[in-house]
Amino acid sequence: MTTSTASINPRMRTTAYEALLKRLNKIADLQSVQNLLQWDQDICLPDGASQARSIQIGTIAEMQHELSSSNTTRLLIEAAEAELQAEGFDNDSDEVAMINAARRDYQSKVCLPTELVSRFGTLVAEAQEVWQQARESSNFALFQPYLTELVELSRQKGRYLGFAEHPYDALLDEYEPGMTADELRSIFAPLKQRLLDLRGTFSTGAKIDDSFLRLNYSTEKQFEFCKRLLESMGVANDYSRFDSHTSAFTTSIANCFDVRLTGRIVPDYLNMAIFSTIHEGGHALFDRGINPAYARTPLAEIHSMGLHESQSRLWENLIGRSLQFWTYHYPILQATFPDQLGKVTLEDFYRAINKVQNSQIRLEADEISYSLHIILRFELELALIEGSLTVADLPAAWNQGFEELFGTRPENDSKGVLQDIHWAGGAFGYFPTYVLGNLISAQLLQQIKLDIPTLEQNISEGDFQPLRQWLSENVHRFGRKYQTKDLVMRITKSPIDADAFCTYLDEKFSRIYQVH
Amino acid sequence: MTTSTASINPRMRTTAYEALLKRLNKIADLQSVQNLLQWDQDICLPDGASQARSIQIGTIAEMQHELSSSNTTRLLIEAAEAELQAEGFDNDSDEVAMINAARRDYQSKVCLPTELVSRFGTLVAEAQEVWQQARESSNFALFQPYLTELVELSRQKGRYLGFAEHPYDALLDEYEPGMTADELRSIFAPLKQRLLDLRGTFSTGAKIDDSFLRLNYSTEKQFEFCKRLLESMGVANDYSRFDSHTSAFTTSIANCFDVRLTGRIVPDYLNMAIFSTIHEGGHALFDRGINPAYARTPLAEIHSMGLHESQSRLWENLIGRSLQFWTYHYPILQATFPDQLGKVTLEDFYRAINKVQNSQIRLEADEISYSLHIILRFELELALIEGSLTVADLPAAWNQGFEELFGTRPENDSKGVLQDIHWAGGAFGYFPTYVLGNLISAQLLQQIKLDIPTLEQNISEGDFQPLRQWLSENVHRFGRKYQTKDLVMRITKSPIDADAFCTYLDEKFSRIYQVH
Repeated sequence: MTTSTASINPRMRTTAYEALLKRLNKIADLQSVQNLLQWDQDICLPDGASQARSIQIGTIAEMQHELSSSNTTRLLIEAAEAELQAEGFDNDSDEVAMINAARRDYQSKVCLPTELVSRFGTLVAEAQEVWQQARESSNFALFQPYLTELVELSRQKGRYLGFAEHPYDALLDEYEPGMTADELRSIFAPLKQRLLDLRGTFSTGAKIDDSFLRLNYSTEKQFEFCKRLLESMGVANDYSRFDSHTSAFTTSIANCFDVRLTGRIVPDYLNMAIFSTIHEGGHALFDRGINPAYARTPLAEIHSMGLHESQSRLWENLIGRSLQFWTYHYPILQATFPDQLGKVTLEDFYRAINKVQNSQIRLEADEISYSLHIILRFELELALIEGSLTVADLPAAWNQGFEELFGTRPENDSKGVLQDIHWAGGAFGYFPTYVLGNLISAQLLQQIKLDIPTLEQNISEGDFQPLRQWLSENVHRFGRKYQTKDLVMRITKSPIDADAFCTYLDEKFSRIYQVH
Repeated sequence: MTTSTASINPRMRTTAYEALLKRLNKIADLQSVQNLLQWDQDICLPDGASQARSIQIGTIAEMQHELSSSNTTRLLIEAAEAELQAEGFDNDSDEVAMINAARRDYQSKVCLPTELVSRFGTLVAEAQEVWQQARESSNFALFQPYLTELVELSRQKGRYLGFAEHPYDALLDEYEPGMTADELRSIFAPLKQRLLDLRGTFSTGAKIDDSFLRLNYSTEKQFEFCKRLLESMGVANDYSRFDSHTSAFTTSIANCFDVRLTGRIVPDYLNMAIFSTIHEGGHALFDRGINPAYARTPLAEIHSMGLHESQSRLWENLIGRSLQFWTYHYPILQATFPDQLGKVTLEDFYRAINKVQNSQIRLEADEISYSLHIILRFELELALIEGSLTVADLPAAWNQGFEELFGTRPENDSKGVLQDIHWAGGAFGYFPTYVLGNLISAQLLQQIKLDIPTLEQNISEGDFQPLRQWLSENVHRFGRKYQTKDLVMRITKSPIDADAFCTYLDEKFSRIYQVH
């Protein structure tokens, strides 16, 4: 990946770059350790130790911050950059990508004033607790002052981070590097209309019974079945670990060498365990597939949530809710739960797991409604950050926006604007990545079907190897090397847009709802 | 705990001391993180991640070493020391103990040359692997060159660490601060003779059947019963965690707030699970009982292995193998395993778990033979370090020493000199702490019985609260504050000696073997 080095003393050639790498390795190790401290807190920690654990996380985070924001790091980046330039390294080389990532990380650490970071951290900790109470009692007023300060600080944050057009862009950039509010607007506007049209069409279609998904299912057997699904997907035991937990998540403890995921298993709704597991399995395969040579460097840390989500959603929805997937797995599921599913046909099961629910709750929404939830969130957070909407007016704006999209008003704020934790966590600019994930997953699948003509056949035989290999070669291995827009263009020769996703929904749900 | 501060500006008073504490907190957090990385490696880590984990442990260990051996740390210690002296702090205060511990830790980090530490680390890693092969094939020659270098480096280590009388003292000091080879010799010589006499007496006594301990016992049920034992002992779930593992150990992840222990459970020998769990439970209670104000400081890190072992052995043997303990717990055990134990009386069970086995293997030895194994180890490692015995002559010396003590020669080196990993780990001076633990546990119990006249009654009713409280108040809470010799003197008004232990063995086994 390097070009001519003829005139360079070979001993000198990599000195600065390697010194930088060594430092980046240390910073990455401290991140892995924080991930372990957090994972352990979720899965293993005795209840009485949570305060002690917060202190430990604080110590490591502080050490990591000191290292990554230090002047030495800046100097190492500059020296390595000069070195690579002198040696004429290709812009497409890993080395140049490494330096770009390191510079970006350094700048994001130093551009925010310490007091702002510290106040933001304290506020988020408080706000999340208050949000929990507010949601439980459906009392927005309780949460309002916290959200107001969070919006104000986020606006400040945006100004410090810097932006060309819109302060929201600076925040969005944290979760979706290179994306802007304007781009999102131009992608989301046609998507919104097409989703509304699709929903209208299918609401007149056949009725679907999914009551058998809500019988009593042994959580132990569900766990065993979920492990079986991960095995099918190729989430290897040697490098990963699967637990049951009250929320589903995936984390890397040592980059691609140690990926840990959880599924959320409840006794009275079979979808929860199955699709949270397949979803996290998709994330896990991404983390597992990143070039091992990137381990302990910034290139192994994916910043594009949209790209990561494209992997989880590809598996969860496009693969995991397909008829082919269950052609292979449904007999196994039936054998696991003969009492509940013995008399349910494959076709009825397939239709049930794809029922359009129109739920007030994002997490329970079907594939069509889901993106509408997000588009509403995006419009509201954009308005909050640009100052055209006050926090006081937010619940009314949510209810009105929801009614326009779904035809009903939420029962209360707890099932409305208070349902999601993201804003309480200070995350503005995160929501749209969920839709980007949906769109990209469909664009990728279109390309995959061209490249692997036997894909559906393979899946219906439980053979995921060709798919996994395609994802690994075209997406996973690059880690953070490319911007997501560029990667999608590279793979599909198209910018990120809604066409593939809407076509996919149209074809799939037309068949399910027998509407033509 | 402080004395007059009248003439001191209160803002100045604690400046240096608190700055030191802050640094010690950071160093302690890095130790806790290493403990978690290690625990997680043993209990949770996917197989494929072990190399990545070693690197992470290395990074944190290096950061900890840099912090603890830095000149800043030395300056902080000196400044804090000057401050406390100026303020006339009591020598018995926590503050003075803290500085002493910090100074000691600092010196142990800086007095060894980096190359020696590094070579020792590499050698130990290799030697442990080779030892494993050597033990499996009973091939001492394989291990000999590694052990030879380890002995040589340990002698060098001793010289760097410094000693008054014997290089062995410097090594011993790592595991038993303040103890010397001469003191050990004068304690062990009479002990050896009395143990041999006792064994001679009991070998003529009644025959004991313990075959029912070697039936098939469900490991799940054993695990549940062990959890029940820990509950009795008061190892609280809120601050600890219990797992089953191939070896039994205890570690603190956040000092007294997060203590994790494992039991070793095998299907065909009931003693293993029960007594490894009670043993580790004793360690866990110690760690749990250390003054919470010492958390994140050197005073929470126990260096005296003898003192720690006195707690595990007190619970394992003196309490856990007593008739009173099983008066309460045996009915529960019987109900758990009615097929295996339904017809075995309490008295027969009690005699079986105390059977004198005379095993060639230390870990399977009874309470009398056990200390003889250790005394032999001590004599040999002392001779190795002073140079009066070569590694080449070691197996013969072990076999001869063993025959003198036990009347038989080991079947082979794997059941002889190769049976223990300690020397391969570079730990010379560790073995004698096991015997010190035995002796101290008996000295403490003698005092406890004076202080709690209802002790036996309490135990036979499953009430461990008075015992636990006594241990907490007299031993645990002090953490590392006192030297073990001083603590034993403080509690029992006696130096460490073998009287209490031999009296205990005599009384207990006379009854069991019906010899008078």
